[in-house]
Amino acid sequence: MDTNRRDILKMGGSAALSSLMLSGTAEAASGSFPVVVEPLTGKAGYRVANYLPRMGATSRLGLVTNDGMVIDIPAEATRQKLTLSFDPTSLISLAGSGNQGLLDLAKLFKGRGQATQNVNQIILLSPIPKPQSNIYCVGWNYLDHFEEGLKNREDKSIKEYPKVPVIFTKGTQTMNGPFDKIPYDGGLSTMIDWEAELALVIGKKGKNISEENAMEYVFGYSAYNDTTARDVQQKRQSGQWFKGKSFDGHGPMGPWVVTAGGVDLKDVRVICRVNGVEKQNASYSQMYFKIPAIIAELSRGLTLLPGDIIATGTPSGVGYSRNPPEFLKPGDVMESEVTGIGIIRNTIA
Amino acid sequence: MDTNRRDILKMGGSAALSSLMLSGTAEAASGSFPVVVEPLTGKAGYRVANYLPRMGATSRLGLVTNDGMVIDIPAEATRQKLTLSFDPTSLISLAGSGNQGLLDLAKLFKGRGQATQNVNQIILLSPIPKPQSNIYCVGWNYLDHFEEGLKNREDKSIKEYPKVPVIFTKGTQTMNGPFDKIPYDGGLSTMIDWEAELALVIGKKGKNISEENAMEYVFGYSAYNDTTARDVQQKRQSGQWFKGKSFDGHGPMGPWVVTAGGVDLKDVRVICRVNGVEKQNASYSQMYFKIPAIIAELSRGLTLLPGDIIATGTPSGVGYSRNPPEFLKPGDVMESEVTGIGIIRNTIA
Repeated sequence: MDTNRRDILKMGGSAALSSLMLSGTAEAASGSFPVVVEPLTGKAGYRVANYLPRMGATSRLGLVTNDGMVIDIPAEATRQKLTLSFDPTSLISLAGSGNQGLLDLAKLFKGRGQATQNVNQIILLSPIPKPQSNIYCVGWNYLDHFEEGLKNREDKSIKEYPKVPVIFTKGTQTMNGPFDKIPYDGGLSTMIDWEAELALVIGKKGKNISEENAMEYVFGYSAYNDTTARDVQQKRQSGQWFKGKSFDGHGPMGPWVVTAGGVDLKDVRVICRVNGVEKQNASYSQMYFKIPAIIAELSRGLTLLPGDIIATGTPSGVGYSRNPPEFLKPGDVMESEVTGIGIIRNTIA
Repeated sequence: MDTNRRDILKMGGSAALSSLMLSGTAEAASGSFPVVVEPLTGKAGYRVANYLPRMGATSRLGLVTNDGMVIDIPAEATRQKLTLSFDPTSLISLAGSGNQGLLDLAKLFKGRGQATQNVNQIILLSPIPKPQSNIYCVGWNYLDHFEEGLKNREDKSIKEYPKVPVIFTKGTQTMNGPFDKIPYDGGLSTMIDWEAELALVIGKKGKNISEENAMEYVFGYSAYNDTTARDVQQKRQSGQWFKGKSFDGHGPMGPWVVTAGGVDLKDVRVICRVNGVEKQNASYSQMYFKIPAIIAELSRGLTLLPGDIIATGTPSGVGYSRNPPEFLKPGDVMESEVTGIGIIRNTIA
């Protein structure tokens, strides 16, 4: 039994099952781990990937089918003689194209020809490799994660749960692919920690968005890991989180974006596994500030743009709050799953 | 005597003198305040502006001469049949073009034809209207500003001066022009505060940059105001500064970038005036963490790119720490000067 197979068996549950269903295909170009295609939980949606059909090719968007095949969006549009309302190499462009973009995806999908590539034969990239602003993030968004931090946190002045979502950001250069390596430099931090999260992509420009209207601004969802240099976040930077959250490549995202209609939030679970061992597992219902509250607070006086990314916070179970604390080291495999969306898997370099 | 003239007389010092020298020209297209061209303090440098020659024109880079005339860089390059090493509509591109870009500027300047536009006849834009990542900022970088905050600061856990520069960011949508209005919404914050700063623009890609080499990474300098919603920064967001620092348009920059050789840092003073009354005035020598220390800390594990902007911190004298506290209200005029570089002037909307 090879290592990959053993890892899959350790995973348990539906993820392992989905993996095994695909594990007979060619070895994934995006790593030796078979890509998992989980069933969608929403009524109608699409998995939109940003990928290379082979090494050295140019990147493009693709639709991933339930059976793990990839529809090359620009090629399929050409075949169907369909003039697209978005740039088929940019998910930011697609996110900004509104209903017309979704109608285009529906036409492409419905009229599709034979897809010849399996998702395990392509190279999956971050859906948005070059974000147009820092990644917006929410701190302490699961009650048990706030509480687990109380004993270890450097800043002892924060004892009460925040009244609004606490926003911080990660630099654009933290963006990383769903199966890419996470850089590690022990001279800079020896406390690299995991934080699996549900990320969303904004689909409409807006400011001072009300909670009532907020969900109209969501284009889709992705799996994300807000990888953190805990010592820099907590101590070195006198309480400001940005720097400890912003080492290069410390924010993998993917494996694709599922458009909003394809996700039933009440079924979403956020799970993190390290070397196959489950470390975090919580449901959307445990999220304290739900997505409408996050968008409303973030957009107060601040214009959100299509393609902006919001990471919605991590559940309890981070390494820093364990007894004894645990941190990532080179060779470790960090797996971040958002059920109904997908699994990303990153090795610490 | 008109209002502008009165304002200029209130200013006092070299700024007023420079203003008066130019005040006979046509009313500035970028506002009714004559643009001040301060003498350069360094050995050899250029003022590079991003501007519209007239309303409705496309933006371009220009060189501003000591006598306040503007050389249209793309037009002058065409006239000289010079193939530029950078996109003459993008300061990010120029910043990334290295020595060749500076050589191009030298050729353009030396061989220039008759410049026909005065700096008061053009519309000056932010040198970098669309930053490629959030604006990097340094907190508490003047000892007296750290101390003036001790009595008012919400977070009582930070009593000792930080051992390294504390980094936070402002969203890309905070960027504003040197003479543009600052949006004001009393429903979101009634504590809008000024923070005049020296900003720098990175000119070379780098990570883990040593203090010894850091100055090689500076392309140039600009005046900046890290306008802040103090209530949101200090209280609402549980100690994370991002949101209170990131209201739309709360980060004016300009009036141009002076290339590094044109600035002698030891002579730099950072000054803020509100309605003509001086509120902040400190020299580079009072800056606690100097630019090499800032770049070294920021670039630990984080790749800086040409065109990235770093605001280096504000001196004492902010409104929040005054007795009684003072805040900006609609109609107020906030003027931020960095001597040897220039003055920006923004009205609260």
